[in-house]
Amino acid sequence: MIIAMKEGVSRGEAEQFAETLKKDGIAVHFSQGANRIVLGLVGDTSAVNGENLMAHHLVEKVIRVQEPYKRANRLFHPAGTTVEVLAAGGTAKIGGGTLGIIAGPCSVESREQIVDIARAVKKAGASFLRGGAFKPRTSPYSFQGLGCGGLDLLLEAKKETGLPVVTELMGIHHLELFADVDIIQVGARNMQNFTLLRELGRSKKPVLLKRGLASTLTELLMAAEYLMAGGNSRIILCERGIRSFDNYTRNVLDISAVPALKKQSHLPVIVDPSHATGLSWMVPAMAKAAVAAGADGVIVEVHNNPEAALCDGEQSLTPAAFSLLMDSLRKYADIEGKHIS
Amino acid sequence: MIIAMKEGVSRGEAEQFAETLKKDGIAVHFSQGANRIVLGLVGDTSAVNGENLMAHHLVEKVIRVQEPYKRANRLFHPAGTTVEVLAAGGTAKIGGGTLGIIAGPCSVESREQIVDIARAVKKAGASFLRGGAFKPRTSPYSFQGLGCGGLDLLLEAKKETGLPVVTELMGIHHLELFADVDIIQVGARNMQNFTLLRELGRSKKPVLLKRGLASTLTELLMAAEYLMAGGNSRIILCERGIRSFDNYTRNVLDISAVPALKKQSHLPVIVDPSHATGLSWMVPAMAKAAVAAGADGVIVEVHNNPEAALCDGEQSLTPAAFSLLMDSLRKYADIEGKHIS
Amino acid sequence: MIIAMKEGVSRGEAEQFAETLKKDGIAVHFSQGANRIVLGLVGDTSAVNGENLMAHHLVEKVIRVQEPYKRANRLFHPAGTTVEVLAAGGTAKIGGGTLGIIAGPCSVESREQIVDIARAVKKAGASFLRGGAFKPRTSPYSFQGLGCGGLDLLLEAKKETGLPVVTELMGIHHLELFADVDIIQVGARNMQNFTLLRELGRSKKPVLLKRGLASTLTELLMAAEYLMAGGNSRIILCERGIRSFDNYTRNVLDISAVPALKKQSHLPVIVDPSHATGLSWMVPAMAKAAVAAGADGVIVEVHNNPEAALCDGEQSLTPAAFSLLMDSLRKYADIEGKHIS
Amino acid sequence: MIIAMKEGVSRGEAEQFAETLKKDGIAVHFSQGANRIVLGLVGDTSAVNGENLMAHHLVEKVIRVQEPYKRANRLFHPAGTTVEVLAAGGTAKIGGGTLGIIAGPCSVESREQIVDIARAVKKAGASFLRGGAFKPRTSPYSFQGLGCGGLDLLLEAKKETGLPVVTELMGIHHLELFADVDIIQVGARNMQNFTLLRELGRSKKPVLLKRGLASTLTELLMAAEYLMAGGNSRIILCERGIRSFDNYTRNVLDISAVPALKKQSHLPVIVDPSHATGLSWMVPAMAKAAVAAGADGVIVEVHNNPEAALCDGEQSLTPAAFSLLMDSLRKYADIEGKHIS
Repeated sequence: MIIAMKEGVSRGEAEQFAETLKKDGIAVHFSQGANRIVLGLVGDTSAVNGENLMAHHLVEKVIRVQEPYKRANRLFHPAGTTVEVLAAGGTAKIGGGTLGIIAGPCSVESREQIVDIARAVKKAGASFLRGGAFKPRTSPYSFQGLGCGGLDLLLEAKKETGLPVVTELMGIHHLELFADVDIIQVGARNMQNFTLLRELGRSKKPVLLKRGLASTLTELLMAAEYLMAGGNSRIILCERGIRSFDNYTRNVLDISAVPALKKQSHLPVIVDPSHATGLSWMVPAMAKAAVAAGADGVIVEVHNNPEAALCDGEQSLTPAAFSLLMDSLRKYADIEGKHIS
Repeated sequence: MIIAMKEGVSRGEAEQFAETLKKDGIAVHFSQGANRIVLGLVGDTSAVNGENLMAHHLVEKVIRVQEPYKRANRLFHPAGTTVEVLAAGGTAKIGGGTLGIIAGPCSVESREQIVDIARAVKKAGASFLRGGAFKPRTSPYSFQGLGCGGLDLLLEAKKETGLPVVTELMGIHHLELFADVDIIQVGARNMQNFTLLRELGRSKKPVLLKRGLASTLTELLMAAEYLMAGGNSRIILCERGIRSFDNYTRNVLDISAVPALKKQSHLPVIVDPSHATGLSWMVPAMAKAAVAAGADGVIVEVHNNPEAALCDGEQSLTPAAFSLLMDSLRKYADIEGKHIS
Repeated sequence: MIIAMKEGVSRGEAEQFAETLKKDGIAVHFSQGANRIVLGLVGDTSAVNGENLMAHHLVEKVIRVQEPYKRANRLFHPAGTTVEVLAAGGTAKIGGGTLGIIAGPCSVESREQIVDIARAVKKAGASFLRGGAFKPRTSPYSFQGLGCGGLDLLLEAKKETGLPVVTELMGIHHLELFADVDIIQVGARNMQNFTLLRELGRSKKPVLLKRGLASTLTELLMAAEYLMAGGNSRIILCERGIRSFDNYTRNVLDISAVPALKKQSHLPVIVDPSHATGLSWMVPAMAKAAVAAGADGVIVEVHNNPEAALCDGEQSLTPAAFSLLMDSLRKYADIEGKHIS
Repeated sequence: MIIAMKEGVSRGEAEQFAETLKKDGIAVHFSQGANRIVLGLVGDTSAVNGENLMAHHLVEKVIRVQEPYKRANRLFHPAGTTVEVLAAGGTAKIGGGTLGIIAGPCSVESREQIVDIARAVKKAGASFLRGGAFKPRTSPYSFQGLGCGGLDLLLEAKKETGLPVVTELMGIHHLELFADVDIIQVGARNMQNFTLLRELGRSKKPVLLKRGLASTLTELLMAAEYLMAGGNSRIILCERGIRSFDNYTRNVLDISAVPALKKQSHLPVIVDPSHATGLSWMVPAMAKAAVAAGADGVIVEVHNNPEAALCDGEQSLTPAAFSLLMDSLRKYADIEGKHIS
């Protein structure tokens, strides 16, 4: 961390200020320029709050050279992390050369619906089943998911097909209900629900952490750091579109987040083209783009009857369209030297 | 709600589609244009999900004319709402011609700190004391607030000064601890924590609801609707800056949200210039702008020693600077025909 | 175009208002709902200004169903447009199954530099040479390009290699100098320089039109419409990154603009990963993502000595890295049933 | 400017790199940290391109401490600049304690229209008349202004009322026609039309420079620097709303840009609430907020018949509403110790 003092600050003043910084093994190095003194902080500055330092009347600017996250940082874990869960025939993986393909409906609606879709996506090559039981909805008057009943149906579909399941947790009071869920999803709107993150950090369950609609990459990695600081290292990052000024698509899918996150972190990164675009016809193009950019997988909404879906039908692929997409993704994976399940 | 069918859709097809919409007292009106059929939905369409309709293969476009919120809508409550809480000398108000001034430190740090600041802001004319006990922090390594101990100190400051207190709730498991808190704050990062909103909707406590960093005004009003749908009508909306591409200030304070929200809703609207700008020297200009634009109050960070503050010192006013600001705000309130406590 | 009148507007008032709309062959259709009258405008409404109508005191809402652009609209030209220019061995193409690969330095710096790079990118498989002579720079103190001298050197490189050239025009007073330029680039900052667009609409030269940093897709298509309204139909659209709140990359490359633009328009769409990301190591991933998403080509910065480049070295590939990228792009083109020159 | 070298870079390598920076009087200061060498550049670094330095393989990070603009910088001109133009009774001013009030229609439509409005806004207290002759319109099919004829009518209104006039220049080929225009407006879409800026820098006419829709404050000041580098120091900056994700208002008026720009620069800053919001009923609230935040004036659209306006009627005040607004602004000016003409 580099701290530029204001012009006119004396060496004595700077030294006095520097004393307040020398804790937790941090050393301060002085550099006298023509106009100002510049301090260099040496050591682990993750816990130093740059914004607080800016409040000091002698400080002009604070610049962080080292990233504020540690456990999520690729520097401290150069090889990529692979997240594995038990599946019917062994394990299902995301990362490390394996593309994790997660597919299923926005909401679990009935036993028949979720089992049919589960079978269809498994047949097409998906390795995980997604399905919402507790749904975060903008309006209190919209369908909020089947709740506990939905969770039961999802777990029945898991039993029928052997596919591990991914579903969203909306509050820590539901954590016990999720004992048989394989991957717990933290939704975009909860990415900075620190109470939830802290609790999931104590869990040993893999977490699919979605990027908030206006979250920087650093904030996403800091949210992962919350989970990892608690001891949970099985984290999958998910880019799912950010807020922008254009409304042709629901959000703007930031594909460049994929190489950017993989450069900064060892955690696997997947992409959700369904929520990002909100338009089913655009999903295949964006899923392919994600894999081309280096993603470790995709999470795609599939519904056996999109027009009758209780939520997000507009963005759901039919099983047939999903199957075609899988054919393409296998070719893309080949070029990139990766494989699907 | 208006639904434009695709070109080529026949009257018969449109009528069949329309049948699926006729529920909950909604009638459908047909209009035959030169190129397409247009449907008009008549009745309360709050519960109709426009996005779902877009999934239908016969539908070109769905346009909502009526807003999706009801209880928060000014249409159904033309007079403005005033939120009142018990205070030392009677009641403290926000709205209805009274500017609610909320002031205090980012975090409660010690008994002396919070009591001193409480006395200072009361003397300057504030009617509410703010102070964080549970702090949402981007980094797990940053100071997270004093927790329950901080809450106790805040309540001591309340006892000492008679000022009602405002503090943030980060999870529903803490709700019992907040029995003596006068106004519960829902932070920007929790604006769409629907679990939290639903629970607070059942409470009778006033809620200070902060706009999310990338939330539209409609989303903010829908979050208020979650609270109101549960029966809680004592809601204060708060504009606190939105994400943008410029980083001179921490966020962009959207002052136009004040007249926009007051046009659409009867709820009082206040502004937080401290978190929006992140720069204490800019707070007075923006607080005055907020009142000039019609805000029902402001929430301002004040610290007796900003340079030593454990968080957000950079954006805190000293008690002296706050007192000067209050002098200005009284003049602005006069012009606008409002008064301060 | 659909116009929802305010509640309480009588049939007589609405009819009087409708009279003002019946011109240029537009008919108005009436629909009486329970609460309000809705008008449907039938005919070519491209010239009807919806914002003006919103100024009328009887109007509640104006909704455009038909897009405001015509010549750029895929509806009126279902097959895609291919832009062709004369090249050494015949023609070089962008669109219609041919990926147009444009490569070269940010700025022309010397005869040796531009000729060397031209030879290298041609050898690697590029079909067009880019190079800036007149450079739009944020600072008046930055290198502004070699100007006319740079243009001459670029044309020499064209002569040496036979590669058609692409370079940016910054003002109509330079148009004559561009007689031998093959494709004229309109930069992002000039996308709504309507004086420039109007003049280029009268030209017969192909135009590479870059999306503005905060331009919606509709605005980009309207800028193309300016060119096409003047008679120039040889337009190539270019996505080059939009402004956002994250600053890890210079801009956010909106890859979903590719399928979105191709759905709405028949014009070819290319992508500029160099300016979008500003980071050379990220260019290959994003170039591949662009092709995977359906782009008709890419424009990539290549420099024989990025560290010594007079501008944008940080985002330039070396000729060797570019050659590797071309190997990948050929495989991606294959899968998508396209080919490179 | 501070340059952090990558870890592992030796002193020798750093010194060799530093040699390339020592030109134009810049000295380089070395500082050896525990992990890396940090260079401090001393001298005028306005012309040093930080992005170019980032291209160097030894460089980790480049941080600018000094702003990249000079002539626009308040550091070099601590007192604020006042822009004055000749007017009927002496001079009309913007800045230095005088609020410049610019009012008039979006477009000049007829002699009667512009003269009537000019008289009305003068009577209400405006000191400048605005009116568009050449209009930048998103659609080539929209009304583009009366052109030269409109300019003549505007100058007639100037003669009739003595009000100095402000109108937009869209290309340098029109510059001669603007000989009698008092203040030349550069529109938001041309803020980085460097060809236009360079030419106006050579002119002696005051320039009203509007912030681009997605321009940072630094970019706005760099655009002003283009004008000032050419010798023109009579610049008025104008905040007119930025692009955001909410579409309740046309743009988001960034009121905090006012104190931010005035801190960084000595140039006067005005606000355009009409284009920012696009809603006439919101204009008074935002004009007052601008003055409360320290603006040196406002530019407001006024039309004698907004419903029939050829453009932007939705955002125009009637003369009566403008007159009421002026009454409020006088009170606000009083509090802030400023005066209106």
